[in-house]
Parts: sequence; structure tokens; C-alpha cells
Amino acid sequence: MSTSLRKPKPETRDRYPHFLTITTRWMDNDVYRHVNNVVYYSWFDTAVNEYMLREGVLSMDEGPVCLVIETGCQYFRAISFPDTIDCGLRVAHLGTSSVRFEIGIFRNDEPAAAAQGHFIHVCCDRATHRPIAMPEDMRRALEKLRVMPVKPRDKLTNLVKRPGVIVGDAGRVPQ
Amino acid sequence: MSTSLRKPKPETRDRYPHFLTITTRWMDNDVYRHVNNVVYYSWFDTAVNEYMLREGVLSMDEGPVCLVIETGCQYFRAISFPDTIDCGLRVAHLGTSSVRFEIGIFRNDEPAAAAQGHFIHVCCDRATHRPIAMPEDMRRALEKLRVMPVKPRDKLTNLVKRPGVIVGDAGRVPQ
Amino acid sequence: MSTSLRKPKPETRDRYPHFLTITTRWMDNDVYRHVNNVVYYSWFDTAVNEYMLREGVLSMDEGPVCLVIETGCQYFRAISFPDTIDCGLRVAHLGTSSVRFEIGIFRNDEPAAAAQGHFIHVCCDRATHRPIAMPEDMRRALEKLRVMPVKPRDKLTNLVKRPGVIVGDAGRVPQ
Amino acid sequence: MSTSLRKPKPETRDRYPHFLTITTRWMDNDVYRHVNNVVYYSWFDTAVNEYMLREGVLSMDEGPVCLVIETGCQYFRAISFPDTIDCGLRVAHLGTSSVRFEIGIFRNDEPAAAAQGHFIHVCCDRATHRPIAMPEDMRRALEKLRVMPVKPRDKLTNLVKRPGVIVGDAGRVPQ
Repeated sequence: MSTSLRKPKPETRDRYPHFLTITTRWMDNDVYRHVNNVVYYSWFDTAVNEYMLREGVLSMDEGPVCLVIETGCQYFRAISFPDTIDCGLRVAHLGTSSVRFEIGIFRNDEPAAAAQGHFIHVCCDRATHRPIAMPEDMRRALEKLRVMPVKPRDKLTNLVKRPGVIVGDAGRVPQ
Repeated sequence: MSTSLRKPKPETRDRYPHFLTITTRWMDNDVYRHVNNVVYYSWFDTAVNEYMLREGVLSMDEGPVCLVIETGCQYFRAISFPDTIDCGLRVAHLGTSSVRFEIGIFRNDEPAAAAQGHFIHVCCDRATHRPIAMPEDMRRALEKLRVMPVKPRDKLTNLVKRPGVIVGDAGRVPQ
Repeated sequence: MSTSLRKPKPETRDRYPHFLTITTRWMDNDVYRHVNNVVYYSWFDTAVNEYMLREGVLSMDEGPVCLVIETGCQYFRAISFPDTIDCGLRVAHLGTSSVRFEIGIFRNDEPAAAAQGHFIHVCCDRATHRPIAMPEDMRRALEKLRVMPVKPRDKLTNLVKRPGVIVGDAGRVPQ
Repeated sequence: MSTSLRKPKPETRDRYPHFLTITTRWMDNDVYRHVNNVVYYSWFDTAVNEYMLREGVLSMDEGPVCLVIETGCQYFRAISFPDTIDCGLRVAHLGTSSVRFEIGIFRNDEPAAAAQGHFIHVCCDRATHRPIAMPEDMRRALEKLRVMPVKPRDKLTNLVKRPGVIVGDAGRVPQ
């Protein structure tokens, strides 16, 4: 099973250029007294949309709509109410119309992620829901969150060679 | 209808001795782009349980359980993600086994409540679920949240006469 | 405390003219292994809006909007996933612009309500959010859910005298 | 990006040996008037746990606990309240301690999935949370949901050769 082959490891905070703090709620805990696996996705959704609203590139009334086509999460350590979450956000891939966000969920002050996920948006025409090229202001906002993959080595090298992309010391691409 | 007769008015922050800050989430907004009416109750639940946990008087493993027998909310103004909530908490009635919490929902820095609610807990035996007298440590923790009603006048007078109950200047009962 | 004076009793299914079946979800259960008190309100919301959509009197795009100004719930017996809910709906008060829905939550095949709640909508202008007279089609749809209160006696008498209101044998107002 | 290379296609109902019907709720819809991407995971969680409870192999009080280590979802078509969901469930991989569930979300009577996801459980010791071998009764219950992958060809062949795998006639892959 590819899942087990991948052996994902918890990343540290320096792999994320942007953070949003989110409070847990009593009802997030399920019968096992830990935050239910579903709730993590509400944090992904919140971190992505808060960033887009903060940057002024998400309009609910006009322009393109961003449709979610794929999400996923890997869980490393349990979280329980009343823990507080620091939600790290980065952009791992920025295509013509799509963007792959990656999210790290950090529990309280812990340095390693308790969970990691991704969230793929496709920019679509509001009426037809067909993919369109992402508006320039949205692209600029998302570029600020771009981070290079750490491994595998060759993939990193490959990316570093892309024009205009330089790997920063905190794993973040400087503008 | 008694509801309309009551004509509730939004209260101000000084009516609440304890606050908890709660962040909103993208999916809290419903199709009307405001936080759905249901979500407010998750904040009530969160404020009450966080206080009990913080005070060390809520155990998930032993001792009595607190069963919710009634909740209610009045909505004055809309709240929308990404607003932040300050959740004011007070105890309006403390019986032998029951407690009536009252909660004020304050949007961002607004001085008047956007919504107000109540939440009635009954302390019950863990096995039989029959009401029992509240443990002393729980009672002491809840006494710290007691606030006198502002009106009607006579009810206030009545309460002030109760032994050991003195109305503080911020509407809070000092010990 | 008025709450305890009221001593609400669980009602039976014949007090509700309309039902909607709702399935519970794993994450509805909280650490106490019962459906969390907040979730009941999502059922109220669902029953009310499903009825309005089914009757064709709720438009998300034009006409008035219905704002929720008050909700409440009394809990009698616990419900747990994977129970199924029959959600009884009736209209207890129908004003010029407002409507008071009352909801009974019936667990699986049980005859008595596990919880009872209310939900007050006010019909408002979409732009100004000021109360307006309810459109006629909405009023007609809501009249079909009208049920007379069983007690107190005098209040019932009072209502029965209202022109055009006759108490039916199942507690429902015939048209 | 591997995600786009995979090009997942919506599957049909015959790929799932077990179904659970789930009702949508008003607050499932977000500002875009469609069920929010997060809510799908609550359906996955519900289908998996309902099956385990129905089969009598999930105990909240004793024996091993099942920890979720990974979930994911691909979204093909929007779903909106008051749609009803048929949630198809199958087991794609059954290891010594882990199981990979795959879930198809079918909107109303539609033949093709509106979304597809996976959900990986690991059977762990209740006290230490270390992986342990799955109990035999749980394994037998999960074997009943096993379905062979349709592609790639070689992977299928590989799986078919595994001893102890017998496929039923209800949409499961015959040997």
C-alpha cells in the first residue's frame, strides 16, 4: 500500500511561512476524548480561506470561485479540547488554475506537527465551473506562501533551477 | 407570546465576570454568509466546560456528571467568519444540584452582546443519572461566576438579602 | 427560576403535524458518548428549512430573508449514534412577520420526545434586514403546521376564540 | 504533482459491497450553498463506525482501539442540502493491524460517485496506543467488505493470489 511506503514524518514549524491560531471547542472531542479526525479539515479550510480573505483575493460576490477537488490528512498525535492549534500554511504547487496548499497542525507550543494535510483548490468560472487561469492578484498572494519540498533531493534541485525560485533558509521562497 | 414580551436587550461586557476568546471557522458560516445559529451553542458549551476544566472541577473519569437539561439563545446581530468571539460567562442561579450559566457573545471588540444565551447543568450520579448535591469544589468554582440580575428591582433586592451575597460594582459577587 | 417552575413534560408524536427523519453521525457523540447538546439545534434548523424548501416558500436568491432571533431546547433523554431521529415540527405562533416553530425530537421508535425545542424566525427585507409582513405563500405553508397549545387552559381558550382557528383532534389546526 | 497524474475517476455503486444512507443538514451547506468539503469526512467516519458497531466488533469500553492515521477525499460533483447520501463502503487493504477503507459518496439516486475517499484505521492497544494484531472477529467483519482493485492489472493479480480472500456477488470482484 503506497500509504505505508510513504512513511510521512511530522515536520517542524519552520516549514510553514504563515500561521493562524485556532481554538478548539468542547464538541470537537469525540467519544475517545480526542478531537475527531473530521475537525482537522475544518482547520485546513479555515486557514486557507482566512489567508485569502486577509490578502483581499477572495470575493464571495464576483470573479472566479475556488472549488476544492482534493483534501487529505495524516494524523501523528492526538489533540484534545482545550488545546489551542497553530495552523501552518504553505503552497506546495501553483499551477495555471490550481493550487496545492499544505497545512501543518501544531498543538499548543509543540515544535513538531500533530497532523499534516493538503487542500487543492481549482480556480473556476463562477457560472460554468470550468477551470480558468488564476487572477494575478490571487497568484501573487499565493506565491508568498510557496515553500520548496525538502526531499527527495533531486526534486528539490529541480525546483531550485526554476527561474525566480530561490530556497530561503526557513524553507520559504523569498520574493 | 412570552418571548416577545420579554424584549431582551443586549448586555455589555461588565455583566460577565469571566471571558473566553473563541475563533470562528470558515464552515461556521452558512448560505447566508453569517455564522449559523447552531454554532453559538458550541461556544456556550466550550465556555462552560473550559471554565470547569480550568478550575479543576470537571473530571471525565469519576465523580458526578453534569447533564445539560436546557439551553437557549437570543440573537441580536450577525457574526461572520473570520470574526473573533469573546464569550462572557456568569452564573445566574446556583441550586443544590443545578446551575444556570448565562453567556454573552461579543463580536470582535464590540461592547454590546451580539447574542445571549443560557445553559442549565444538573449534577448527577454517574451511574444512576439521578440528581445529587453538587460537590463543594464545584460549587466554590461556580460561586466565583455569580452575578446578580439587574432587573427587576425587587428580585435584585431579594437576592442581595441572601446571606453571603454582596453585589459588586462590576455586577459580580465577591467572595 | 422560571425554568424549573415550568416543569416541561415530553410530548407525544400526535402533537406534531409534520416529521422529518434525520440520521445521526459518529461525531455527534461527545466524550459522554451521547449526542452533544449543540447538535439538536442542527436538527431544528434542518427540519424548519427542509419544510420551507419542500413547500417552495424559501428562496435563497430573492424575496425576504428569515432571520433567527431565538432558539431553545429542553433535553429529557439521551440520544446516541447510531440512533435515528424523527423530528416533529409544528407552528405555535404565527405573527405578521414572525413565526414560532416548535420541534419534538423522537429517538428511533419512541413515542415520547427525547427533547423539545423552539425556533423563532422573523421575516425581513433582504437589503435592510427590517421586519416585513410575511409573504402569503409562506404564511399558507406555515398555517398547515399550526397546532394549538394543550395548556394552560385559559391560553388555549383564548386561542380557540381567534377567528379561523379551530382545534383539531390530533392537536392540528385544520384548514 | 502526483495528485494530477492520478486522474481519479468517479466509480459506480457496484464497486461497494455495503451502503449506509445519511441525511444532509441545513448547516452542512457553506456560503457557496454546497455541502462544505469538511462534512464529507463526517460521512466517512459515520459509515465506518456504523458498520463496526452493527457487526459488534467495536467496543468503546474494552479491547483494542482503532486510531485513524490517514484520511483523504476527492470531490467530483457538488452536493447540497437537502440531498440524501448513499455512502458506499469497502475494504481495500487489510493488514495485520491496519485497514484501509474506501468510501464512495453517492448523491440521491445518481449512479456515479460525487466524491471518493479513504480512511485508514490502525488497531492499537488501549493503554499503550501501540499497534497490535487485529482481533479475529474484527478481521472477519472487515473481510466481508473486501473488494479487489480494478487496476492496475498486476496489482490485482497480486492481491487475488493472497490466501483467504473470497469475493461475494454483490458488486465485489469475483476471483
